[in-house]
Amino acid sequence: MANFKPISQLLEEYQDGYSLEQEFYKNPDIYQKEIENIFLHHWLFAGHTSQIPKTGDYFLCEFDKESIIVIRTKDGSVKAHLNVCRHRGSHICLEKQGTAKSLTCPYHAWTYNLNGDLIAARNMADDFDPLSNGLHSANVEMVGGLIFVSLAKDPPSLKGMQDDLKDVFDVFGFDNMKLAKHTHYPIQANWKLVVENYQECYHCAPSHKDFAKVHAMAQSLERFDAQKEAFIKNSDGYVRTKVSPFYFDQAKDGEEGYQYDRNPLLTGRKSGSKGGKPVAPLLGKLKVYEEASSEFMVGPITFFLIYDDHMLAYRFLPETHETSHCDLYWFVRDDAVEGKDYDLEELTWLWQVTILDDEKIIENNQKGVDSRYYTPGRLSEWESFPQHFLNFYLNSLKK
Amino acid sequence: MANFKPISQLLEEYQDGYSLEQEFYKNPDIYQKEIENIFLHHWLFAGHTSQIPKTGDYFLCEFDKESIIVIRTKDGSVKAHLNVCRHRGSHICLEKQGTAKSLTCPYHAWTYNLNGDLIAARNMADDFDPLSNGLHSANVEMVGGLIFVSLAKDPPSLKGMQDDLKDVFDVFGFDNMKLAKHTHYPIQANWKLVVENYQECYHCAPSHKDFAKVHAMAQSLERFDAQKEAFIKNSDGYVRTKVSPFYFDQAKDGEEGYQYDRNPLLTGRKSGSKGGKPVAPLLGKLKVYEEASSEFMVGPITFFLIYDDHMLAYRFLPETHETSHCDLYWFVRDDAVEGKDYDLEELTWLWQVTILDDEKIIENNQKGVDSRYYTPGRLSEWESFPQHFLNFYLNSLKK
Amino acid sequence: MANFKPISQLLEEYQDGYSLEQEFYKNPDIYQKEIENIFLHHWLFAGHTSQIPKTGDYFLCEFDKESIIVIRTKDGSVKAHLNVCRHRGSHICLEKQGTAKSLTCPYHAWTYNLNGDLIAARNMADDFDPLSNGLHSANVEMVGGLIFVSLAKDPPSLKGMQDDLKDVFDVFGFDNMKLAKHTHYPIQANWKLVVENYQECYHCAPSHKDFAKVHAMAQSLERFDAQKEAFIKNSDGYVRTKVSPFYFDQAKDGEEGYQYDRNPLLTGRKSGSKGGKPVAPLLGKLKVYEEASSEFMVGPITFFLIYDDHMLAYRFLPETHETSHCDLYWFVRDDAVEGKDYDLEELTWLWQVTILDDEKIIENNQKGVDSRYYTPGRLSEWESFPQHFLNFYLNSLKK
Repeated sequence: MANFKPISQLLEEYQDGYSLEQEFYKNPDIYQKEIENIFLHHWLFAGHTSQIPKTGDYFLCEFDKESIIVIRTKDGSVKAHLNVCRHRGSHICLEKQGTAKSLTCPYHAWTYNLNGDLIAARNMADDFDPLSNGLHSANVEMVGGLIFVSLAKDPPSLKGMQDDLKDVFDVFGFDNMKLAKHTHYPIQANWKLVVENYQECYHCAPSHKDFAKVHAMAQSLERFDAQKEAFIKNSDGYVRTKVSPFYFDQAKDGEEGYQYDRNPLLTGRKSGSKGGKPVAPLLGKLKVYEEASSEFMVGPITFFLIYDDHMLAYRFLPETHETSHCDLYWFVRDDAVEGKDYDLEELTWLWQVTILDDEKIIENNQKGVDSRYYTPGRLSEWESFPQHFLNFYLNSLKK
Repeated sequence: MANFKPISQLLEEYQDGYSLEQEFYKNPDIYQKEIENIFLHHWLFAGHTSQIPKTGDYFLCEFDKESIIVIRTKDGSVKAHLNVCRHRGSHICLEKQGTAKSLTCPYHAWTYNLNGDLIAARNMADDFDPLSNGLHSANVEMVGGLIFVSLAKDPPSLKGMQDDLKDVFDVFGFDNMKLAKHTHYPIQANWKLVVENYQECYHCAPSHKDFAKVHAMAQSLERFDAQKEAFIKNSDGYVRTKVSPFYFDQAKDGEEGYQYDRNPLLTGRKSGSKGGKPVAPLLGKLKVYEEASSEFMVGPITFFLIYDDHMLAYRFLPETHETSHCDLYWFVRDDAVEGKDYDLEELTWLWQVTILDDEKIIENNQKGVDSRYYTPGRLSEWESFPQHFLNFYLNSLKK
Repeated sequence: MANFKPISQLLEEYQDGYSLEQEFYKNPDIYQKEIENIFLHHWLFAGHTSQIPKTGDYFLCEFDKESIIVIRTKDGSVKAHLNVCRHRGSHICLEKQGTAKSLTCPYHAWTYNLNGDLIAARNMADDFDPLSNGLHSANVEMVGGLIFVSLAKDPPSLKGMQDDLKDVFDVFGFDNMKLAKHTHYPIQANWKLVVENYQECYHCAPSHKDFAKVHAMAQSLERFDAQKEAFIKNSDGYVRTKVSPFYFDQAKDGEEGYQYDRNPLLTGRKSGSKGGKPVAPLLGKLKVYEEASSEFMVGPITFFLIYDDHMLAYRFLPETHETSHCDLYWFVRDDAVEGKDYDLEELTWLWQVTILDDEKIIENNQKGVDSRYYTPGRLSEWESFPQHFLNFYLNSLKK
């Protein structure tokens, strides 16, 4: 267990076009570096404003040993505080979500206002300074109603992305969505195996029968490329088809990586659902089903898939170097009424089926990667996105 | 995980008046040192003579990887043996308590008498010496019927404490109690967070509503101090009120730390029970309910709380560096009859409620202490006892 | 946890005639060396041809982080492949046993034929060489229908054993058995404690009452030796009684260790069953119940016990350095019909009872070995086989 190679050697030995060496998935020191250089630096999707409509509403965003309180303050803004009392360190919010008048530690009742300032602590010596004992805080940025947090002192900028994708957020109504459903899946595998899985559709046809009945992408690479070319040619441009390829390793200096792309569904398929049938009112300013879906990615662990009538978010977070969790979020337009305009089961069916398949796939991948006989394998031409992710990942370890 | 600071540096960096740095709760090497310097050295409360009335009766006292058999021998004395066969190391007693004619290893039937001497081992070579293959033993000392064990070669002396508190043991009838109930609680936290929790009542008002309805101590520090002053002034001295402050770090050279103190309950409260009503016959030589309770502490992990009609013991032991267990014991006078003189549920209600609250509190404390954003926090004026404990603890690591 | 002695020092300090020091059971680096020098080198019993009668039938043989597919190929031979896809490392076979037309990875559908050659991988670059991307394979050797695998480049030879024991395999009909039952037991103990347990009958009388009603071996060493001498003297030699003592440390250079021995049962006992009554048709060429059983051992972790009417196999494998698993296999002659010629419950009763006892014994042994107060203990004269095993084991660590 102890004889891991130096990280620098592992980085040097990595061969482009291949999967990672086993130690990247097993070495706890590498895991610590990942947390510091990736998860404590980049922007993480935390949740949505519709989860915290009123003052004091909060939810937690948790990974590894960290817990962040994302809360609606009195002035209506969203703040993020570390869920760690400045006294003896207790968690302050014990429920995954709730409503609080103030943030009062359940242990000794040290009390912070919603902005995180310490406003009450009994029996402290005269030289105790409440001002320097507020909750540690995280940066918050909004993308429409989507809430992103970063624990970095100096996080990468999101401005380039916000400017570039203004029309996208506008046409899909990012300011006018609500969370319809949120599900959570623990996965017995290193987080990178989970991200790698989402990054490619090389596995879609063998693994995801239901997905393959809707998404053109699951066909052969050649057929998909042809179909996409035709789709873009025929597009009236109402919804942007132009790719924003600042994917992971392709981010501009000082900016967060992001990506936008639009892909056709199979002919006649209108949404990401059983048989591709519509499952909710059209999003934003859309007027017709274009039989397509858009991909939007920002930061290293969150992927948004925008169908014409709902948006899905996939979020991956590490728990230990051997375990992860995956959260799925379904968004619909904020004036849609459950039971009338959409049925939750219909809305969420396809991706609940898909994630359960992926969970098994990823855990079996981990089992094999654990073997002494695992060696990095050659990636296919269909795995260019995992390669981008690996490039980004390996660069992150160099810092 | 691997990059812990040297212990000497941690000790040097500790700042008086603050909680401990995270590494004290996480570094497995520190945990090993704690076991050696604290748990294998000091006196641990193991149980009570009323648990082993007859020859061969035994119970186990277990912490970390150790298991100690506490047993009544033929001459009526109490001995303590390591539960490790001298042959190939099997545990000998497999049940937490029982009765044995001899200590026969269930594996190969090596047999020890109740004193721990090897009296039978089949098929051993002629040069095998049974005399040098007796069970390893632990020191035993009695405080009334309370059994303490120490694994030290040269354990700290209990004599000063025994002499000092003779009148206390006498008035409460320490020689004439019996165990009424014993409960066991696993806690997902480092043992120090558990001990720290017991050491202060800063958390009582916010956390323990039922406790606060009985104990004056749960009010504000100022009100309690005033009430205590009045209580001591009015005391007729029948039960000692004089403090014995040889608490942890204040122990005399070569002696075990101990403490005695007497505190008022809230007016009209007679015992540690729902509403403070009496729950058992008065202990020892007590003649009236004094509406008070005495604290008695000896060794690093056991706290006795003596109400006028029953005594409670709280014992904390480590299981791993991340998990602990807590045992609660309720004692009544030995001639009290269950169902007639006391009702078990009434007797045990208050502290069963309280420990369950504390279990949650402590586990949430651990979660926050695990965060990278936890930093040692300033202690309040109400946390002087935890400070004594921390002083003792840090000194123990220096050895 | 971190301060383990160097292995060389531990090896030097080992004292003949004693059990091992604690660190041999606890140090993860020693465990890694054990896996490499023992489990990846020697022959491991994997299963039986009757489990995979048809082309494509397979079962898995798993230990530590390794999974081996043992499969019947098209030409009827048995092959063994590592269960690790050469692409991104996924396990290929997910069920413990099954039937496959080809070995298709469930992740991205890379497809291998039953011989392990890569025969399909979509979208690979032109310079990708399928020939060098076949499944890693393990060596396979057959002993009658028993399948052994070795992951060594140059495994020890089994030829000496095959030649020597030809008459044994012949008389018991090793070519004409079938698996009647297979059971699996996880054990919370280091694998060596499990093997040591099987190696001696010093514990049989205290621990295994039902076994002791059948096997003469469970009596005193002196009585057994006398009874065995008489048994051998009276034997007509139809079943070999001559010992093959190439046990563990006594293996010839370059050969796998093995052993054969024949021992009397208690008078009137015909088989390893309740009361010693027959439970299946006589094996191979046997014509009468000889009231005896033969021991056959080959490789470090598998023990065969051959009664006149059935054969039992005991296999021990490590899972982590703290956990193991034990598999039991019962074999009968291949033309015996379940329900008519044998009753599964009767057949398997004795050793199911025995293994459950041993499971407890071994786990209690581990608990005591975990104590700081465990020290290597003197072995009895009845523990010569564990001593052979320890010699072999310690020599293996020297490599």
